[in-house]
Amino acid sequence: METLILSKQDVSKLINMKDAIASVEQAYKAYCSDQVIQPPIVSIDDAEHNGEIDIKTCYSKSEALVSIKCASGYWDNPKRYNMPTLLATIILLDGKNGYPLCIMDGSLITSYRTGAAGGLSARLLAKKDSKKVAVIGAGNQARLQIKAISEVVNIESVSVWDTCKEFMNAYKNDISALLNVSVETCGTSKEAVMDADIIVTTTPSRKMLVMNEWVKSGTHIIAIGADMKGKQEIDPKIFCRSKIYVDSVAQCVERGEIQNAIETGDIEISDIYAELGEVLLGNKEARTNESEVTIFDSTGMGIQDNTLAALIYQKALSSNVGTTIKLL
Amino acid sequence: METLILSKQDVSKLINMKDAIASVEQAYKAYCSDQVIQPPIVSIDDAEHNGEIDIKTCYSKSEALVSIKCASGYWDNPKRYNMPTLLATIILLDGKNGYPLCIMDGSLITSYRTGAAGGLSARLLAKKDSKKVAVIGAGNQARLQIKAISEVVNIESVSVWDTCKEFMNAYKNDISALLNVSVETCGTSKEAVMDADIIVTTTPSRKMLVMNEWVKSGTHIIAIGADMKGKQEIDPKIFCRSKIYVDSVAQCVERGEIQNAIETGDIEISDIYAELGEVLLGNKEARTNESEVTIFDSTGMGIQDNTLAALIYQKALSSNVGTTIKLL
Repeated sequence: METLILSKQDVSKLINMKDAIASVEQAYKAYCSDQVIQPPIVSIDDAEHNGEIDIKTCYSKSEALVSIKCASGYWDNPKRYNMPTLLATIILLDGKNGYPLCIMDGSLITSYRTGAAGGLSARLLAKKDSKKVAVIGAGNQARLQIKAISEVVNIESVSVWDTCKEFMNAYKNDISALLNVSVETCGTSKEAVMDADIIVTTTPSRKMLVMNEWVKSGTHIIAIGADMKGKQEIDPKIFCRSKIYVDSVAQCVERGEIQNAIETGDIEISDIYAELGEVLLGNKEARTNESEVTIFDSTGMGIQDNTLAALIYQKALSSNVGTTIKLL
Repeated sequence: METLILSKQDVSKLINMKDAIASVEQAYKAYCSDQVIQPPIVSIDDAEHNGEIDIKTCYSKSEALVSIKCASGYWDNPKRYNMPTLLATIILLDGKNGYPLCIMDGSLITSYRTGAAGGLSARLLAKKDSKKVAVIGAGNQARLQIKAISEVVNIESVSVWDTCKEFMNAYKNDISALLNVSVETCGTSKEAVMDADIIVTTTPSRKMLVMNEWVKSGTHIIAIGADMKGKQEIDPKIFCRSKIYVDSVAQCVERGEIQNAIETGDIEISDIYAELGEVLLGNKEARTNESEVTIFDSTGMGIQDNTLAALIYQKALSSNVGTTIKLL
């Protein structure tokens, strides 16, 4: 029997944002329908090399597929090794017998499924006439978020803020080229978010970058950056006046943006309104009026890797992409 | 950059028991010298398909290598899929930047490092003149244990018991051919262990197979089978009169044979005498007389996978074994 190997280049031929959004929709529904076994995330903090490693494992009962994703972030890679900061490898096992069906690069899958989560939340939760998007952080995920949101919202303008001017300018160039929108680089995070309909935070920050007073009513906030203990991008006070959605209550309480608002006592776990899958299944409501502030706290789930990896694997088989090896 | 792929056949060319014992010795020492980050084992119980999946992750600080092993046991594989019950895949990452250096079949590495642990314990803990070995269970691991013990003890005879007569006969044939020793198949587990110097238990049992009254003084017991909640092979009473060694206190208390003796109240955690690494480092004593009963409780650690996988990877590089792929 054989195992399919898909390189980053192979995956790049097969992945697109429309598919990724559909895949994350399937993932969130499965998660809220008891179709998923998702053990705790395993994390290794490698302070000596300024890196961290996360292993996300997931069993999809409906598809009988197991995914194990090992994703690492080593922040000195670009300058020390001329290598990307974020690397990831996914093993996809047949859930009926444990056979390794496919081993694939997981970095694009991670970027796309994370972007897609933000886009999906915007489709469900942003005001219908949303036009202005603010992005905090100008890295790779800031690009994917805009790519995903542009699939579901008619963006007219993007305002971006980052601590690094060079990154902001590169971001402006990339996004202007990608979408037919005006992109404004900002001197402060306040300037970026003040007039936004949708705010996306995508930094590795450990302190507040978006204050409560700056957020107008009707805004939808997509909180992406905080995905482990100690990370923070948003003033906890914003949660007090918002309708709170999460990808997973269990994960967000532990490692999402919401951990901070719970720790300060601004909200309790019971103040979380819904997991996004519950909205997709019709068990909970999306936005109900134009004035409420909605927040989507995303930590990234194994089932998102699982469904998108499975889709890429199927597409690879049917379009003959990849290399087969004999592992056993 | 490239990633090395090592198939089961590649690994089989590079692995041997002598190396595996040295590698496990290195692993145990590292574990007891604060050179290892070993997050909790992730387990998925797949009752629907009569299977289980374990993910063992380990960071070796001294080698700056990360191993992620995904091992599965699907008990119906041989008859349903003509596939081995136990499958495993290991990813070896560069611990300085997260790069996937090598992806290799992990089934032989698992078998050998588990066998080697038993052999290493016999070298340290069995009476010097041990000659008779009893093996409970006649599967693959029962073979590897004898292979490892024969590296460190002059075995004269092996007595084996299994619930399946066919397995016992096959075992007798294999072990007689492998080593120049007499092998006796037994009608009961009692018969097998009554006169043994070393007893090895290697079954997936959930009830006692070796009773206290059957174990003579001076015996060394190697408890391999119990490696998850609910498994048991040995009468807890044996622990009351034994000097207890483990691979890892943390793991054995949770999922080793010792869980049962703690649950029944026969012993407390503080009755564990040492981790084997402490003996290897000279911080704790091995056997001190010919009459004490010693038990080694082995659950299998990520660092054992890590050190042996690293050795196989190095040997593959220097002897040009394997296939390289471009993953990134």
